[in-house]
Amino acid sequence: MQILDGKQTSEQIRQEIAAQVRKIKEQGGKTPHLAAVLVGHDGASETYVANKVRDCEEVGFESTVVRLPDTVSEQELLDRIAELNENDAIDGFIVQLPVPRHIDEHKVTLAIDPAKDVDGFCPANVGNMCLGLPTYVSATPNGIMELLSRYEIETEGKNCVVLGRSNIVGTPMAILLSRNTAPGNCTVTLLHSRSRDIAAHCRAADILIAAIGRPNYVGADMVKPGAVVIDVGITRIADDSRKSGFRLVGDVDFEAVSDKCSFITPVPGGVGPMTRASLLQNTLKACQRKS
Amino acid sequence: MQILDGKQTSEQIRQEIAAQVRKIKEQGGKTPHLAAVLVGHDGASETYVANKVRDCEEVGFESTVVRLPDTVSEQELLDRIAELNENDAIDGFIVQLPVPRHIDEHKVTLAIDPAKDVDGFCPANVGNMCLGLPTYVSATPNGIMELLSRYEIETEGKNCVVLGRSNIVGTPMAILLSRNTAPGNCTVTLLHSRSRDIAAHCRAADILIAAIGRPNYVGADMVKPGAVVIDVGITRIADDSRKSGFRLVGDVDFEAVSDKCSFITPVPGGVGPMTRASLLQNTLKACQRKS
Repeated sequence: MQILDGKQTSEQIRQEIAAQVRKIKEQGGKTPHLAAVLVGHDGASETYVANKVRDCEEVGFESTVVRLPDTVSEQELLDRIAELNENDAIDGFIVQLPVPRHIDEHKVTLAIDPAKDVDGFCPANVGNMCLGLPTYVSATPNGIMELLSRYEIETEGKNCVVLGRSNIVGTPMAILLSRNTAPGNCTVTLLHSRSRDIAAHCRAADILIAAIGRPNYVGADMVKPGAVVIDVGITRIADDSRKSGFRLVGDVDFEAVSDKCSFITPVPGGVGPMTRASLLQNTLKACQRKS
Repeated sequence: MQILDGKQTSEQIRQEIAAQVRKIKEQGGKTPHLAAVLVGHDGASETYVANKVRDCEEVGFESTVVRLPDTVSEQELLDRIAELNENDAIDGFIVQLPVPRHIDEHKVTLAIDPAKDVDGFCPANVGNMCLGLPTYVSATPNGIMELLSRYEIETEGKNCVVLGRSNIVGTPMAILLSRNTAPGNCTVTLLHSRSRDIAAHCRAADILIAAIGRPNYVGADMVKPGAVVIDVGITRIADDSRKSGFRLVGDVDFEAVSDKCSFITPVPGGVGPMTRASLLQNTLKACQRKS
């Protein structure tokens, strides 16, 4: 069994991006600039945005955080988005979700100019992905594709099972791996809460992608010997033996499965860091598209 | 075995639409108006557009055909599309594909206002479909969903195999049947030219949708007893015994398969007429959305 090391791979990607940014700067080009809109003071959102700012600094991007109080009106938020759409200094931006309940998340997503939608959440970009057109693929599926690519995992003709049909992970993953691309050309089966015989489907998978948010759900009995296992889940479990009081657990029972499969992503250090690196890749692309 | 009668069902849909149009007119509302842009003189395209005009007449819609010579420049075509986007009299329109080679089909699709894109081909509408948002679903997948719905075929938790990953049939079909809707909630496997063990996958299908354009490809050995079989294929085969000199053949070997399955669409008279009715449904929706 070999670890698909997301930490190391994402570090390599960040170094590649940093090298490209240095080159852009040397040639007098525009420094890529990511903005993040943060509404309110949700603890997890604060952390995610802080990480994004740190990632930008590390690769030489500029970054801007637009902080708005959780009392901001929907219209005010939409106005700020319109400003970011117009602002040529900003190459791409994200609105950190969730937004407060009085704001319609869908309206927010729709307000973002698809050319600056580096999260890849707006319908036009999702549609472009489906149609195989240039787009921003959302961060987690993009990171998984990158991991499969860099580890040169053979995907063509393989049976791939995706567990979970969320709009930001499972569904795009199923679409991307079905397409006539490399990685891609898999025979993909998409499983979800209404599926039957889930274990049997999983056992038939050459590539198994678990994205349902249920800790340790995938046991050894659900994995074909030699399968490639990608674990998107990341759940905090109380753990008194840790200083932090918790540990992070994936959807896959790593101990049980790791002996049986050919490749596996650990949690943490697998898909998570790849997701972070993807946002940087999309921002660089947004900057290069304009020039 | 029961026939999924697309001819009869589409006739019923047309009658329902006609009744709605009469009601709209009685109440002084706007008559739905579909426009079709036809470039050049491709025989099949002429027929398709003529059928669309006839369908409109039958249900009481207005229709307009914009005929352009095959020498039309890309810019001229885009200008005509812009006019149709702006023209409040036109609720929805389609550009009959293919367009001549000197015109970029993708640019054409992108130029259509998503609110008038009753073919459902533009990225924003494809993305909306993926995300489960209000949209125009393209005609063939929409027609199949309608057929499953009107025959009250149970889909939840069923294994569905879609044969063929085209942008206008296979891929949207796989997405639609995976979603948390009714019809929907299937466990969908999407097969294509790079898939292996195609027959074995098909044999596991409770619902089999064949959309690869290979006449009689699906034999009885590929069908599970009691399966629901949807045949999207329609290929002209030379046949001297027919006055026309040809007959239409689906992707499914109807003679062999029909004894084994629970439901099956015939060719012709199955998916084809449902596809035509879908365009009318989308045009009515476009008209109602505006008011």
